[in-house]
Amino acid sequence: MEPLELHPDRFFDADPTRRRIARSLYEEVRDLPIVGPHGHVDPGLLATNAPFPEPASLIIIPDHYIFRMLYSRGMRLEDLGIPRLDGRPVETNPRTIWQRFADHFYLFAGTPTGAWLNHEFYHVFGVRHRLDSDSAMYIYDQIAECLASPEFLPRALFDRFNIEVLTTTDAATASLEEHRSIRDSDWDGRVIPCFRPDALFRIASPDWQQELDAFGRISGHAIGSFDAFITALERRRAFFRSMGAVSTDHAVLEPYTHALTQEEAEALFQKALAGTATPADQRLFEAHMLMEMARMSVEDGMVMQIHPGSFRNHNQQIYRDFGPDKGADIPIRTEFTRNLYELCNAYGSEPNFTLVLFTLDESTYARELAPLAGHYPALRLGPAWWFFDSIEGMTRYRRLTTETAGIYNTAGFNDDTRAFPSIPARHDLCRRVDANYLADLVARHVIDLSDARRMIRALSYDLVRETYRLDRQAQPT
Amino acid sequence: MEPLELHPDRFFDADPTRRRIARSLYEEVRDLPIVGPHGHVDPGLLATNAPFPEPASLIIIPDHYIFRMLYSRGMRLEDLGIPRLDGRPVETNPRTIWQRFADHFYLFAGTPTGAWLNHEFYHVFGVRHRLDSDSAMYIYDQIAECLASPEFLPRALFDRFNIEVLTTTDAATASLEEHRSIRDSDWDGRVIPCFRPDALFRIASPDWQQELDAFGRISGHAIGSFDAFITALERRRAFFRSMGAVSTDHAVLEPYTHALTQEEAEALFQKALAGTATPADQRLFEAHMLMEMARMSVEDGMVMQIHPGSFRNHNQQIYRDFGPDKGADIPIRTEFTRNLYELCNAYGSEPNFTLVLFTLDESTYARELAPLAGHYPALRLGPAWWFFDSIEGMTRYRRLTTETAGIYNTAGFNDDTRAFPSIPARHDLCRRVDANYLADLVARHVIDLSDARRMIRALSYDLVRETYRLDRQAQPT
Amino acid sequence: MEPLELHPDRFFDADPTRRRIARSLYEEVRDLPIVGPHGHVDPGLLATNAPFPEPASLIIIPDHYIFRMLYSRGMRLEDLGIPRLDGRPVETNPRTIWQRFADHFYLFAGTPTGAWLNHEFYHVFGVRHRLDSDSAMYIYDQIAECLASPEFLPRALFDRFNIEVLTTTDAATASLEEHRSIRDSDWDGRVIPCFRPDALFRIASPDWQQELDAFGRISGHAIGSFDAFITALERRRAFFRSMGAVSTDHAVLEPYTHALTQEEAEALFQKALAGTATPADQRLFEAHMLMEMARMSVEDGMVMQIHPGSFRNHNQQIYRDFGPDKGADIPIRTEFTRNLYELCNAYGSEPNFTLVLFTLDESTYARELAPLAGHYPALRLGPAWWFFDSIEGMTRYRRLTTETAGIYNTAGFNDDTRAFPSIPARHDLCRRVDANYLADLVARHVIDLSDARRMIRALSYDLVRETYRLDRQAQPT
Repeated sequence: MEPLELHPDRFFDADPTRRRIARSLYEEVRDLPIVGPHGHVDPGLLATNAPFPEPASLIIIPDHYIFRMLYSRGMRLEDLGIPRLDGRPVETNPRTIWQRFADHFYLFAGTPTGAWLNHEFYHVFGVRHRLDSDSAMYIYDQIAECLASPEFLPRALFDRFNIEVLTTTDAATASLEEHRSIRDSDWDGRVIPCFRPDALFRIASPDWQQELDAFGRISGHAIGSFDAFITALERRRAFFRSMGAVSTDHAVLEPYTHALTQEEAEALFQKALAGTATPADQRLFEAHMLMEMARMSVEDGMVMQIHPGSFRNHNQQIYRDFGPDKGADIPIRTEFTRNLYELCNAYGSEPNFTLVLFTLDESTYARELAPLAGHYPALRLGPAWWFFDSIEGMTRYRRLTTETAGIYNTAGFNDDTRAFPSIPARHDLCRRVDANYLADLVARHVIDLSDARRMIRALSYDLVRETYRLDRQAQPT
Repeated sequence: MEPLELHPDRFFDADPTRRRIARSLYEEVRDLPIVGPHGHVDPGLLATNAPFPEPASLIIIPDHYIFRMLYSRGMRLEDLGIPRLDGRPVETNPRTIWQRFADHFYLFAGTPTGAWLNHEFYHVFGVRHRLDSDSAMYIYDQIAECLASPEFLPRALFDRFNIEVLTTTDAATASLEEHRSIRDSDWDGRVIPCFRPDALFRIASPDWQQELDAFGRISGHAIGSFDAFITALERRRAFFRSMGAVSTDHAVLEPYTHALTQEEAEALFQKALAGTATPADQRLFEAHMLMEMARMSVEDGMVMQIHPGSFRNHNQQIYRDFGPDKGADIPIRTEFTRNLYELCNAYGSEPNFTLVLFTLDESTYARELAPLAGHYPALRLGPAWWFFDSIEGMTRYRRLTTETAGIYNTAGFNDDTRAFPSIPARHDLCRRVDANYLADLVARHVIDLSDARRMIRALSYDLVRETYRLDRQAQPT
Repeated sequence: MEPLELHPDRFFDADPTRRRIARSLYEEVRDLPIVGPHGHVDPGLLATNAPFPEPASLIIIPDHYIFRMLYSRGMRLEDLGIPRLDGRPVETNPRTIWQRFADHFYLFAGTPTGAWLNHEFYHVFGVRHRLDSDSAMYIYDQIAECLASPEFLPRALFDRFNIEVLTTTDAATASLEEHRSIRDSDWDGRVIPCFRPDALFRIASPDWQQELDAFGRISGHAIGSFDAFITALERRRAFFRSMGAVSTDHAVLEPYTHALTQEEAEALFQKALAGTATPADQRLFEAHMLMEMARMSVEDGMVMQIHPGSFRNHNQQIYRDFGPDKGADIPIRTEFTRNLYELCNAYGSEPNFTLVLFTLDESTYARELAPLAGHYPALRLGPAWWFFDSIEGMTRYRRLTTETAGIYNTAGFNDDTRAFPSIPARHDLCRRVDANYLADLVARHVIDLSDARRMIRALSYDLVRETYRLDRQAQPT
């Protein structure tokens, strides 16, 4: 078996001057707490604090970054144990799954998934061998042994990871029972929900009526009008706030914003209730609802987040057989300047409003997003999202936005992950990349070291707390 | 107070080999005269040669790069002394404004504005302390004292800056009286106008009739037909040429070019006169006028410039309260290959024609602009414009265009600035960035040092003179 | 005359750590055979094995990379000896043409053409002086002398270049007589055709009927229905396969894919036969034919290639006077996520299907292409095409795609060239650039040296053989 080593200067430039500066900047923030304002960890993990399952179920089966790469090279999802919606058999032997993964781990060389996994293996589970065909079972056993011990229970890891806040993502219809259970426990970890009402705005979806019914049930009354819908949303946001939420999240295909008249909105809502809303209707409705969400944020102070540009479930067969979030969401070109015109004009200068914008279309960073964020007080640029939460992608993000927007119109890092044990790896990688970016500026005498020290701390800790108003928001009691 | 130091190797890569080469290339061009073929300095400055006002009025209030960044972080423009159109009160104490600016100067760390200002403070005003809350008044006093001395009169600075040519930007309706006054003076600085008739082409604008009336007055007769309009434009261009102009400039939302028939053009013009022209009419009219401007350039030899892709005055409240050019112009995606098809086919191979293309959409550099400029003899790529006149942006511009178009189909640098005292800083930064770009090619043995020497001189001086035909154009007498 | 030197470490980063690693990686693959899966060399060259003509006819006149750059700086194509379609006189003295080229060779500094030419001069022809005005005739004579010797016959160069496979590009109507002649000869070089039926799918083109007639003749019967058309295409593919072909190639303006019903397809075909097909009809027809080509590839195993996004013959005067492929093909923005939706859903997960995607729109690499190739098993990303087959372009390609798709969903290199003597230069440059890219990952401890060794071999040799199934395909006998 080959030894696994993580070089202490990994991800820093080879040039000795830059590397030295990068290392010193990184060391200033390496041990700062992790603030997670946006992610997809299941709150039930921390509510029940049950032991994690064995390695394949923990690491491979829930992580579409991993299995979509194996799929792209010809492996079947069934052979990796991904459950089928129709219940037909898939591989159930976790050791077989793990071996298949290990046999193909070389595919991740040079990818962020590879970097995260090696960090997780090394630092979370104490693995000291490179994962490959030979070491597969040895490492499987080592991780499995860890998982059986109390030090690897979710809350213990949360504390060991030094997580100050962990934000989950929750449907508008979520009961937040797990969050309540965490708050009612004697454990003091801060786990807060985020309000994500997307499904209620997709009025052309076949699932919409069902979503609305669920929303009516949790709201305590049927919702028969647009007015009632708005009121129920406002109340639901208040409930989320009472449970600690500081933010909302909105995924749309394009970030089109447009205010309808009350009559227009009502008419669309009635079409939706009648089951006759078209995709064009939905586009308008979503555009209006983004305006409404912004208005509510101005009123209730919840930070609004928009994640546009993902064409979901591109592979329909995978979607039918395995469901969503299987690595087949593909980005599309995105436009912000015109699409956000109405929202920016209506709310972009409101002192009590913060809107964090994410993109999967890097061509918008320098062209649209940095200029918008460099002007409107309410706008903040979210970190390099998803396919770009990588060394190169994060570096491009800084190089494309800083000169126009500065760093202080950006929102700090978020890991956006559902893979709980990978959280430290992701924040560590980001801190290294930001330190390396700033080190280059110092080495080229664009900024000096005192600037860089303040900036690395801002990027690693201060900006995320400021953006998401985590200081203003008392820990719910 | 902290010392302000400008490292002699600033903006060069940290790698010692590249840095050494970059420094040697930079030293070859550091002291070459500044040629400014495109900018927005007020010619009245140099016509009256009156002393500059105090520091806040000189440096902050006219510079939207500065105040839009402060605005983006929540400061009110009123508190920075930006005058309101309605005359309502704004901050009038320049020391208060300067202090607010200094308190937030850290926001500019890593931005070109920060780099320019530090250069300007250091080299123009002899400041030796970093601007921050503590040093604010000390530096204010130091700059104010400079401005009161004759060495800091505009013409004295122009001479000290070693400016060979300075080009202003002037409406078609401009009288050019200030230019005449400069020519009639005993001062020999070369300050030339540039013909920018945009306002006359925006036939759907509520201001169009007023612009046309002004154009009629300055042309000496009312303009009631498209024919008369064309003739008046031709005559006006001749007047500009007689005042030293070598170029025209055209800002459009999209660079669409399309020749109308005489009848179609006349019909649009009559609709405009009747006040019924629509935005779609304007789009066609502008497309036709770009064709006409190209035709006239073929005939009179004026270099044509197109600046597309800026969505002006995105923040309508700022526009209503403070007017245009307040940092709220946001780029949009731009298309050149199809839009310039007609113009390129009609005039792109004309020996007497030069068209300089600018973009705010970097994705067009490698995809469309470099291939177009690498084919059509008339086309030249303008420097990285506006949000990209920065270390990273300029570097990307060279890396994205050189391998297809070479450097000899680019137009050299222009500073595009209205901030007169920042001119040397901008040219110096560009020369450093170009030297560093070429040094990398030398260090990687893509070119050798003799190539690089010729190229750095071309980028810093020769190409701008060639592109704008400044050698052919005698200083007006 | 100045000496021409090719630095052994050219194209590697200046940083000594990276350079050392890059050199060691490059040395592992420098001498591997050249595998050319896609190019435009005239098979007649190798069929007749006639001596190459003199230097200008070999190097300048057929290479639009060269003469379009000279044209862009104001030279006439006639003065470079490019033949006019109307037979009107052009420069015929090759020494005059060569001298003009040499006088302007400085224009290519920093371009891939410059790098390729210097490599070709040095390594193929033994030139040891820099090409410039002074050395022009000396170098002309040196190359001319080479060309007269048997060591410089095409087959001798093919063997000396260590070419394992050379693929040509051949119309569906090509007889492949030259390929047969090569196979029937006693020379064992592997030269295989590629099936490119584009012209048959452009049903709105004035040339379509003529193309169809030629296709009918070579198919042995007139083609009067869509059914007959499909059958003839299937048979023609079988013939190409019997002549060694392993791939098909498809150039489209946009990569739109959409399956028509049998009736719709037949109706379009009948409109085409009637000469009334519109551009909109052609768009649909091409979209359907891409689906048909994919279906046939699933059945016959030929690797499918799509090259979208080139606006051909942008300069219509050059096209009328000199024909196509004169350096006036300009890229346009390209969309893949939606356009390939139908094809990916129908065939993207087929085990027997490989689709290689090329792009001229770099903004699609990270946004669309890497995510698509990182999911669908059938998809492979082709190398940086055309304007991007350059140091910077290839480096950006790797930096933009590897973190999402890994390297194992890419297709290795192809030179796409018609300039036979430049083939080693292009592969050498690519191997250097890939080695340098990987060296940076090693130096930053993203991957280790053992990963990098496997990866450089994959990029230089293994992946192209795997992608194009060159191992499965026996040398035709």
